[in-house]
Amino acid sequence: MSEERRSILETFENPHPNRDYSIEIVAPEFTSVCPITGQPDFATLTLTYTADAKCVELKSYKMYLQNFRQAGIFYEDVTNCILDDLVSVLAPRAMKLVASFTPRGGISSTITAVHEANR
Amino acid sequence: MSEERRSILETFENPHPNRDYSIEIVAPEFTSVCPITGQPDFATLTLTYTADAKCVELKSYKMYLQNFRQAGIFYEDVTNCILDDLVSVLAPRAMKLVASFTPRGGISSTITAVHEANR
Amino acid sequence: MSEERRSILETFENPHPNRDYSIEIVAPEFTSVCPITGQPDFATLTLTYTADAKCVELKSYKMYLQNFRQAGIFYEDVTNCILDDLVSVLAPRAMKLVASFTPRGGISSTITAVHEANR
Amino acid sequence: MSEERRSILETFENPHPNRDYSIEIVAPEFTSVCPITGQPDFATLTLTYTADAKCVELKSYKMYLQNFRQAGIFYEDVTNCILDDLVSVLAPRAMKLVASFTPRGGISSTITAVHEANR
Amino acid sequence: MSEERRSILETFENPHPNRDYSIEIVAPEFTSVCPITGQPDFATLTLTYTADAKCVELKSYKMYLQNFRQAGIFYEDVTNCILDDLVSVLAPRAMKLVASFTPRGGISSTITAVHEANR
Amino acid sequence: MSEERRSILETFENPHPNRDYSIEIVAPEFTSVCPITGQPDFATLTLTYTADAKCVELKSYKMYLQNFRQAGIFYEDVTNCILDDLVSVLAPRAMKLVASFTPRGGISSTITAVHEANR
Amino acid sequence: MSEERRSILETFENPHPNRDYSIEIVAPEFTSVCPITGQPDFATLTLTYTADAKCVELKSYKMYLQNFRQAGIFYEDVTNCILDDLVSVLAPRAMKLVASFTPRGGISSTITAVHEANR
Amino acid sequence: MSEERRSILETFENPHPNRDYSIEIVAPEFTSVCPITGQPDFATLTLTYTADAKCVELKSYKMYLQNFRQAGIFYEDVTNCILDDLVSVLAPRAMKLVASFTPRGGISSTITAVHEANR
Amino acid sequence: MSEERRSILETFENPHPNRDYSIEIVAPEFTSVCPITGQPDFATLTLTYTADAKCVELKSYKMYLQNFRQAGIFYEDVTNCILDDLVSVLAPRAMKLVASFTPRGGISSTITAVHEANR
Amino acid sequence: MSEERRSILETFENPHPNRDYSIEIVAPEFTSVCPITGQPDFATLTLTYTADAKCVELKSYKMYLQNFRQAGIFYEDVTNCILDDLVSVLAPRAMKLVASFTPRGGISSTITAVHEANR
Repeated sequence: MSEERRSILETFENPHPNRDYSIEIVAPEFTSVCPITGQPDFATLTLTYTADAKCVELKSYKMYLQNFRQAGIFYEDVTNCILDDLVSVLAPRAMKLVASFTPRGGISSTITAVHEANR
Repeated sequence: MSEERRSILETFENPHPNRDYSIEIVAPEFTSVCPITGQPDFATLTLTYTADAKCVELKSYKMYLQNFRQAGIFYEDVTNCILDDLVSVLAPRAMKLVASFTPRGGISSTITAVHEANR
Repeated sequence: MSEERRSILETFENPHPNRDYSIEIVAPEFTSVCPITGQPDFATLTLTYTADAKCVELKSYKMYLQNFRQAGIFYEDVTNCILDDLVSVLAPRAMKLVASFTPRGGISSTITAVHEANR
Repeated sequence: MSEERRSILETFENPHPNRDYSIEIVAPEFTSVCPITGQPDFATLTLTYTADAKCVELKSYKMYLQNFRQAGIFYEDVTNCILDDLVSVLAPRAMKLVASFTPRGGISSTITAVHEANR
Repeated sequence: MSEERRSILETFENPHPNRDYSIEIVAPEFTSVCPITGQPDFATLTLTYTADAKCVELKSYKMYLQNFRQAGIFYEDVTNCILDDLVSVLAPRAMKLVASFTPRGGISSTITAVHEANR
Repeated sequence: MSEERRSILETFENPHPNRDYSIEIVAPEFTSVCPITGQPDFATLTLTYTADAKCVELKSYKMYLQNFRQAGIFYEDVTNCILDDLVSVLAPRAMKLVASFTPRGGISSTITAVHEANR
Repeated sequence: MSEERRSILETFENPHPNRDYSIEIVAPEFTSVCPITGQPDFATLTLTYTADAKCVELKSYKMYLQNFRQAGIFYEDVTNCILDDLVSVLAPRAMKLVASFTPRGGISSTITAVHEANR
Repeated sequence: MSEERRSILETFENPHPNRDYSIEIVAPEFTSVCPITGQPDFATLTLTYTADAKCVELKSYKMYLQNFRQAGIFYEDVTNCILDDLVSVLAPRAMKLVASFTPRGGISSTITAVHEANR
Repeated sequence: MSEERRSILETFENPHPNRDYSIEIVAPEFTSVCPITGQPDFATLTLTYTADAKCVELKSYKMYLQNFRQAGIFYEDVTNCILDDLVSVLAPRAMKLVASFTPRGGISSTITAVHEANR
Repeated sequence: MSEERRSILETFENPHPNRDYSIEIVAPEFTSVCPITGQPDFATLTLTYTADAKCVELKSYKMYLQNFRQAGIFYEDVTNCILDDLVSVLAPRAMKLVASFTPRGGISSTITAVHEANR
């Protein structure tokens, strides 16, 4: 299933690969489903990366995230899975993903995962 | 009593143990009792940790915190006790607990305690 | 039990009864218990009233509210009960109570009840 | 389909029917689907009503709203449909529904519909 | 020119014409050109209306507003012109347009125009 | 003592008595003393009035308020007393005083008193 | 001097005189001088009016306000003078001026003056 | 006088001396008197420290601060004096005091002083 | 075209070249066009630099940015192009450009590019 | 002229010279004049310094800043000049000046200059 998901992500050539510049993409409308209760979860995803050869195309990234709309998956898992997918497709110089989930039972959670390329 | 309290905390296996990622859990509805005046205290607890083998299950953490609802305990003590309990049960790679108490007599307090694993 | 609760409320003589002035008291640390799940509820209570002969003493009002800390009672019920208790003890010229409860399951509620004296 | 949807809504007896008090319920995690583009829409729903004989049970209201998660329906339509469903099930003395949708193409929309009982 | 501009606006049938409900559309990315200096102006347009038989289609409204991107026109004029165009095309029961322009020379302006149908 | 306090207030002639315009004065640094506990109280005073023949001079108003720095007096009393003093000295066409006191025991209070001239 | 000041204000013909629409102009950089201490005063002026035949030209309004930069004048006086000047030059259907001055001695003031045309 | 002031500060034994944790205490209701003009000054004091053997008792700290209510003392002096008093009584591992004073003559000041123990 | 664009930028001599001080210029009204959809994009540009011999003249910078009003260009490209143009014209000691674009499809992007001089 | 300006600044002896503490002074009402257009500029100045032997007296600093009220001077120049004047008079251990100017033509600027003593 991971391969299928990754194939949704489209890329375009980094127009300025000779400079290490940062790209931040904030997606406040992420939603998945709790695998235990079946109730929907909601999060804001903040992706920050330094592109190497490829940049992610924004509309394909939006479609990729909508793939989780009916998926039952834990907070910690989904954050690391999305980071793994993006690293696999983009091979960035560096990448960070912060997922801030809305409160459940009066308690809110934020997961932060970082990838550093071996240069 | 500490052992009894700790037994409420349930854990699940860290789904991505090969990556040092951060988990933040904000609990704005913590309440305990002042051991001198018997009046209720209120705080927002912000827990941040890097899991090793185990993650804390959110609902059990909520139930664990409710255990302090009728307990008489000082600010400095309760913050360090909760951190000790979580460290004992999760054995995290790193953990920080920030407890921000609401004003009393026009004065508000925030206690911050940090645990670093010996690696 | 209602009589017992009301007896906690103390009053003092309105120092300026010849003027219709407004008194607003905001209590952001109200907590009771859900009668179905047994989980704690949290609310901010905003009381606004025009005193007639009597004003409510602030410390006794705080103690009165703490009486609900372990009580299992619905949002709609507790808001109207507190208003009824205050109307019974103070006989105000007018009184409004707004109870704003924190989110549960991603949904938050606010109950507003008003009493008008028959003059 | 409307009948099926309405059957999800559960009610409980208004505990203080002799007083016209207001109940406000804010649901910031509403999501449906655009019937033209198939893209998800997101809104915050603010329901305000004066109960007559019946109040809406919060958890059933949450489940009812989740029913729209995969439904293709326009902003103006869904707002009026939810109001119609609630009026049909609760027969309130008065009811207002405000639906604030997140921006699309840089433009955000809010629909406000009001029901007044014939008394 | 006004006829040409109005022809961009598309409508759809009001799905609930028997109820007087309100539709608010906020467009924060409006830009036109000052007819004197040739410098660009920027505004947030907030349109609020009660539909009669027709609602404005959002995407066509966005395209309509982009028509002013290179147009030289004063604040007071553009606000009234847009209101006139929308009234002409939609024949709403009521309509209000608020245009808040960003500061020029340290001074910011907001124009508010209202249309009431003769019923 | 009231006469002595009032004598601190200085006035100047209303420069535009033929127009009913409004003057608002916000004093966020008011402090008095609780007559029971001897602890200091803090409030923001918002005075709004329509002058008749006289306006209050700002510096004298500041000095007048400092007169309460060591005075033991209740919230409800001090608000009405200040209003009475200002009405007595200025004979305004209308006057309102709002006193917002900082939290004590987690509870904050606001007193609002209004004077209307008999015209 | 008033005549000279008024001559700075330029006007243009109201482009939509058949509709009673509102124009709000916020000038946050007004400064004059206290006639007693010689110290500078600072205010935000919010002008709101319904034009009749004429609208005020923004740049001339800015130049007009700069005319007070070295003028010694009281809060209450300058607010009413500016309103009088604008009424004299524009003959508006209605006009309101709100002047919010920054704090002096911990106390801030806002003057609000309204003009209604005799129609 | 310094000795007398320091004797008001009470301490309790640090319940977790084996951990370097941080205690922050915010006191927004500090007031003293300007030694030149005799006018009251107002500040928010933010104290942050790492306790060694002793913690400061909150109520005694509040009483200690009230000691400056009628004292004439400069901003720079009072900040350093309070820090010296607390260091003398608590012998903390580290301590910082930030005093933010409200505006005078349109200008506001913040003094920050730090103590590091010689370990 | 790049040369033509750069010729719009005017400079003036750095008045204090012996000190490394920072200049930040925030331009919240940048707009260009998406090269795929032809729809307008909107961004806030924050430029920060340490001048060497030359500073950029503000009005020419504003005119330079308006040059992109009808240009079809991607986020990542326009940010790097503007930085390149400014570096070419000013030869600064250091320069950073942050471009924050408004949401499209619920997703917003920020591009950050940095230039360091070889000293 | 620089000598004349500097002579306005008065100093007092640092009451705690043996400690490196920080003094921050925020002046939000700075105004000068653009040397090209003759139009007034407005800025908030934030001065932060570590005193050596001398502190700046607040009222003299206010009077010193008013000296620029009618002076025609560029942003970059005035920021560095004020820093130079203060360094010359106070000989501080360290000093930073941040000048945030209000928008002109939709663009706002902030100049930051730092002085480090040679110790």
